[in-house]
Amino acid sequence: MFVRIAAIAGLCAAPAFADPLPSWADTHAKADIIAFVDSVTDPDSPDYVPPAARIAAFDNDGTLWAEQPVYFQFLYALDRLREKAEVDPSILTTDVLRAAAAGDLGPVLAAGAEGLLEVVAVSHSGMTVPEFQADVRDWLGTARHPETDMAYDAMLYQPMLELLRYLRDEGFTTWIVSGGGVHFIRAFAADAYNVPPWQVVGTRAATTYDEDARVILKDPDVSFIDDKAGKPVGIDQQIGAVPIFIGGNSDGDFAMLDYGSAQDGPFFGMIVHHNDADREFAYDRDSHVGALARGLDEGPGKGWLIVDMAADWARVWSSR
Amino acid sequence: MFVRIAAIAGLCAAPAFADPLPSWADTHAKADIIAFVDSVTDPDSPDYVPPAARIAAFDNDGTLWAEQPVYFQFLYALDRLREKAEVDPSILTTDVLRAAAAGDLGPVLAAGAEGLLEVVAVSHSGMTVPEFQADVRDWLGTARHPETDMAYDAMLYQPMLELLRYLRDEGFTTWIVSGGGVHFIRAFAADAYNVPPWQVVGTRAATTYDEDARVILKDPDVSFIDDKAGKPVGIDQQIGAVPIFIGGNSDGDFAMLDYGSAQDGPFFGMIVHHNDADREFAYDRDSHVGALARGLDEGPGKGWLIVDMAADWARVWSSR
Repeated sequence: MFVRIAAIAGLCAAPAFADPLPSWADTHAKADIIAFVDSVTDPDSPDYVPPAARIAAFDNDGTLWAEQPVYFQFLYALDRLREKAEVDPSILTTDVLRAAAAGDLGPVLAAGAEGLLEVVAVSHSGMTVPEFQADVRDWLGTARHPETDMAYDAMLYQPMLELLRYLRDEGFTTWIVSGGGVHFIRAFAADAYNVPPWQVVGTRAATTYDEDARVILKDPDVSFIDDKAGKPVGIDQQIGAVPIFIGGNSDGDFAMLDYGSAQDGPFFGMIVHHNDADREFAYDRDSHVGALARGLDEGPGKGWLIVDMAADWARVWSSR
Repeated sequence: MFVRIAAIAGLCAAPAFADPLPSWADTHAKADIIAFVDSVTDPDSPDYVPPAARIAAFDNDGTLWAEQPVYFQFLYALDRLREKAEVDPSILTTDVLRAAAAGDLGPVLAAGAEGLLEVVAVSHSGMTVPEFQADVRDWLGTARHPETDMAYDAMLYQPMLELLRYLRDEGFTTWIVSGGGVHFIRAFAADAYNVPPWQVVGTRAATTYDEDARVILKDPDVSFIDDKAGKPVGIDQQIGAVPIFIGGNSDGDFAMLDYGSAQDGPFFGMIVHHNDADREFAYDRDSHVGALARGLDEGPGKGWLIVDMAADWARVWSSR
């Protein structure tokens, strides 16, 4: 159906007529993605983009893996806070922390982003980066999701894993640009997504170089929040170029999609719309995580693809 | 002399017995570099490192290109300050700025790093990142070095260009980790070094995303200084892994070399010692830029190569 000249020419690309996105249903979403990739990889196309500029960036929570009932990083933080508090209850210095350690999420969520950050600060700091990342991997190896009972890293979206791989096969570099913590995501991004640590942009804890121990220490303070208008800033800081393909799922991704849209030349924007209560979760405008309103209202007018998860995805979970 | 198994096995590598470093003299420096690269790329070596972890990081000023009589970025800043002040003298709000615009560097240098930053802040802000980078490229295309009368981007070190290329041919990613401004270096790193923008780590101006114009604006404040203990922090922020090959030339690079040294597994550290007044410049302990004392005193004991520029480099300039 789609003549993929670049794939035929490229020795390392997938077989020319194999379906690169088998977990996407045969709807316009899949066709739109493939048509765009064809147009920027075909040297004879007016929209041709050389490989060095084929940069694709994706949000993580709600775009590459699930984010309900709350960000998985926060569930990790809660687990570790409880364990730390059992050893030393004096770390529970505020009502939010005491509620969180008792498993009462109401006061934590009521405190909004600050409540989440408070729990994360106490549970993620006072250790080196490698120690933290080893601990994250330990947790991913044993913890289970409270509703699905699946391992968290089995709750990756198979269609998005295929999209990442397809883009890489077509000469793109694939990046994660997430509101989540950069050290957290890097702990599993290579295994889960085949994305190296330097292609993960995220929210950053302040860090200190300890000149005696010669290690990087994680401090409690947050030094950069990679969300909303922070996402274009993070992209400029770490990538230094504007992606030509950007995917997200919430209004936290609006600014980076809009930044991508503003460039001269071809751009593909996509928003994953969680409308599949049977297989995943259904939420948008009023959700306490991943709220999506402006993207639904303005995205189509900007030419962005709104992915209808229920209709466009033939399969949801990676079930690694 | 050196059997390079990895190069023989790799279809994309340089011809097996061609000299990968022709501008390096046949001294132990060249031999040490090649022996290390052989040891980490030979799958049968106990020191074998897979390509994903073959990360090489280099300082820029004084390591990849010259830095005398003062950092080239500062000479750019001075040129632009003068031009701006001709149009609007009211921007010269301090004694340091007035001296700089009058070409009197004494008071600027006497003010140390703060004096340099003051000039950079006024001359580099109030524009978008692409506008700034286009301006840097314009300047590099016309400006000449005050002593050599060479174009600044002809004052790259040919031996280091060869080293970057050699490392890439052997499966390394090559990074710049500089105290200079990241937007400044990215303006020419792809052309000069074949290093993409995301592989440049540097000092950062604060930036703002303008949601209406959908552009990144450069602000006068500095948000991150990538020097001394800031270099390991910058490496962790942007690379997220510890380089196995690190090169620098001043004590501003000591912390990142020491950070690299502390890892388990193979590591190669090198310091370019500027001792060649005939072909380049001779300076170390007492220089006002690129001062090198601790590296000379402690580097050899840590196993780092001290490159004797006069003896180890058969050629200095790239003369592009």
